[in-house]
Amino acid sequence: MQTVIVDLGERSYPVHIGPGLLARSELIRSCIAASQVLIVSDANVAPLYLDAVKKELSIFDTATCILPAGEATKNLAHAARIIDTLVEHGFHRDATVIALGGGVVGDMAGFSAACYQRGIAFIQMPTTLLAQVDASVGGKTGVNHERGKNLIGAFHQPVCVVADTNTLGSLPDRELFAGIAEVIKHALIADTEFFDWLEAHIDKLCQRDPEALIHAISRCCTIKAEIVSGDEREHGKRALLNFGHTFAHGIEAATGYTRFLHGEAVAAGMLMAAEMSRITDHIDKHDRDRVLELLKRANLPVDAAGIEANAIRKAMSMDKKVRDGNLRLVLLESIGHAFVDEDTNPAILDSHLEAVLRDYTGQV
Amino acid sequence: MQTVIVDLGERSYPVHIGPGLLARSELIRSCIAASQVLIVSDANVAPLYLDAVKKELSIFDTATCILPAGEATKNLAHAARIIDTLVEHGFHRDATVIALGGGVVGDMAGFSAACYQRGIAFIQMPTTLLAQVDASVGGKTGVNHERGKNLIGAFHQPVCVVADTNTLGSLPDRELFAGIAEVIKHALIADTEFFDWLEAHIDKLCQRDPEALIHAISRCCTIKAEIVSGDEREHGKRALLNFGHTFAHGIEAATGYTRFLHGEAVAAGMLMAAEMSRITDHIDKHDRDRVLELLKRANLPVDAAGIEANAIRKAMSMDKKVRDGNLRLVLLESIGHAFVDEDTNPAILDSHLEAVLRDYTGQV
Repeated sequence: MQTVIVDLGERSYPVHIGPGLLARSELIRSCIAASQVLIVSDANVAPLYLDAVKKELSIFDTATCILPAGEATKNLAHAARIIDTLVEHGFHRDATVIALGGGVVGDMAGFSAACYQRGIAFIQMPTTLLAQVDASVGGKTGVNHERGKNLIGAFHQPVCVVADTNTLGSLPDRELFAGIAEVIKHALIADTEFFDWLEAHIDKLCQRDPEALIHAISRCCTIKAEIVSGDEREHGKRALLNFGHTFAHGIEAATGYTRFLHGEAVAAGMLMAAEMSRITDHIDKHDRDRVLELLKRANLPVDAAGIEANAIRKAMSMDKKVRDGNLRLVLLESIGHAFVDEDTNPAILDSHLEAVLRDYTGQV
Repeated sequence: MQTVIVDLGERSYPVHIGPGLLARSELIRSCIAASQVLIVSDANVAPLYLDAVKKELSIFDTATCILPAGEATKNLAHAARIIDTLVEHGFHRDATVIALGGGVVGDMAGFSAACYQRGIAFIQMPTTLLAQVDASVGGKTGVNHERGKNLIGAFHQPVCVVADTNTLGSLPDRELFAGIAEVIKHALIADTEFFDWLEAHIDKLCQRDPEALIHAISRCCTIKAEIVSGDEREHGKRALLNFGHTFAHGIEAATGYTRFLHGEAVAAGMLMAAEMSRITDHIDKHDRDRVLELLKRANLPVDAAGIEANAIRKAMSMDKKVRDGNLRLVLLESIGHAFVDEDTNPAILDSHLEAVLRDYTGQV
């Protein structure tokens, strides 16, 4: 087991990573302040792991809330359902919510915990690679609005994260690869050596080699923990974690959230961001091609053919990083170093976006 | 104009109190980071003050969201309506929400601002005495659940509070008196001298004497600012501000939120808490009678006849101060000094509650 600490003063918390951790309830028992525990999961994950987790927590007064699986669940109505469950069971302010599942479950359980009685404790037990490397660490919680992703939410840090890498065994290939997209993102924005390592180990990761997975997850959590510790509420460098995401949100909105998994859209978005970095002379073609090649080897979609640039552009204008009308894109200055381009005004973006999309969908 | 600073480090903010402040937009202009401003108000307040405020803010890109007036509005569905308005107008993370109205408007606008894009700036422009002395300061925001008050919410501090005391001129008597209940609360929990002052000036307050109002509001904001600065998230002494409120929430729930205004229920709740303090030998009958007398002189209801003790008790068990099953009541050790009684277990409360209610509804 590896443990990464997210250092946020009195709100610091551990991220435990390793095989078989769902059975090691001592890791979370000390984080549960009182007897009331609500486990939130979804219809895919609950049949696999809920009974085992409940058994481990049998000394507590445990309730469950099982949501439909999928991104379509991630809205205010379903968050209200979690809150209803807390109210119906008479949960108090010292109760604990456990999110057992992927990013959607974590985001919704976390947001509900943030809002219930103005904030109760929650624990993340991520069961997808994407959630283990990204969503479960850092305290971003939220739900989608029909007009945009994560438009409703809260910063609410978990008290503990337990990433049992054995759960990745049950993950469909496509979701594994989508998680690898976020792994690649962490390397691209902050760690050249890790990118080199990924180029050497990407096949092992795709084959779910346990040691490779644990190394990659630990590395991502360490990178993310460091960034979040320095900028919890994204006033500065935390925005780097959104590399590829502004494009990805545009792609997801333009395709009705159905064509791509989030990680797949991030892969496509990262390639577009790399292409934008190349067009604006921050990186050269060789580096752009390294990004492309690694994404391809991770079986990630690198083709957004048929998506309207206008639809992407419109959705991008709702991005949370927009500041007083100016879109702030995260670009690469090299592999392993990202920066926020404060100067991306809409006109510049518009003139490049067609080219980015053309290069992206055509030449690659 | 008087200005009280709520000292919360980099999230500190001023509370400006005085006549005619709605026309002094320079007080808030410097707090508005970007051009987008949403003014949230209700159907009672908007006709009186919205045009004036909009005119003062004509340099900004201003939208409005007018809610139905009253506590019944304070739910997740109406908060979603505010968020819809923000989305529809394409508001970004640097936008500002202004709450123009009483406590309900402030709580809802603040909660919506807390959730939109994980938190955008908001400004309180309270137009009721209750909101000026209490609700607009301290960052508690939230909405009601059908099963309990303020069960859904967030701690989200405003960037500025502007309390124009001229707006109190349009307040119905009953709402003025309800606000005075919260004024009395601040004196009871933390300021013996202020309680003496209130005994001397209560008639002037009830007659809306401008100087008396400004003094009382400033005193309350100073007391509250001091408590909130030391304990923003109510891990300790902030709970003192809930004096009377556990009973009040029980009374409100037991009467379907229709019989009493919130401040009236707080008055009734404070008398019950004072009675409980007397029964448990913390204060004597003389002090209890001083509380009763002052509430009566402020035209506040001191009669809860016909309310079922059981219904109150049941609603109280959902109180946010409950910790691992134990109700934590705020009691008086003297006039001007409150404390949290950690030992109030449900059995003790049950045995006293009937007596409290009997004394309260019968002998007083």
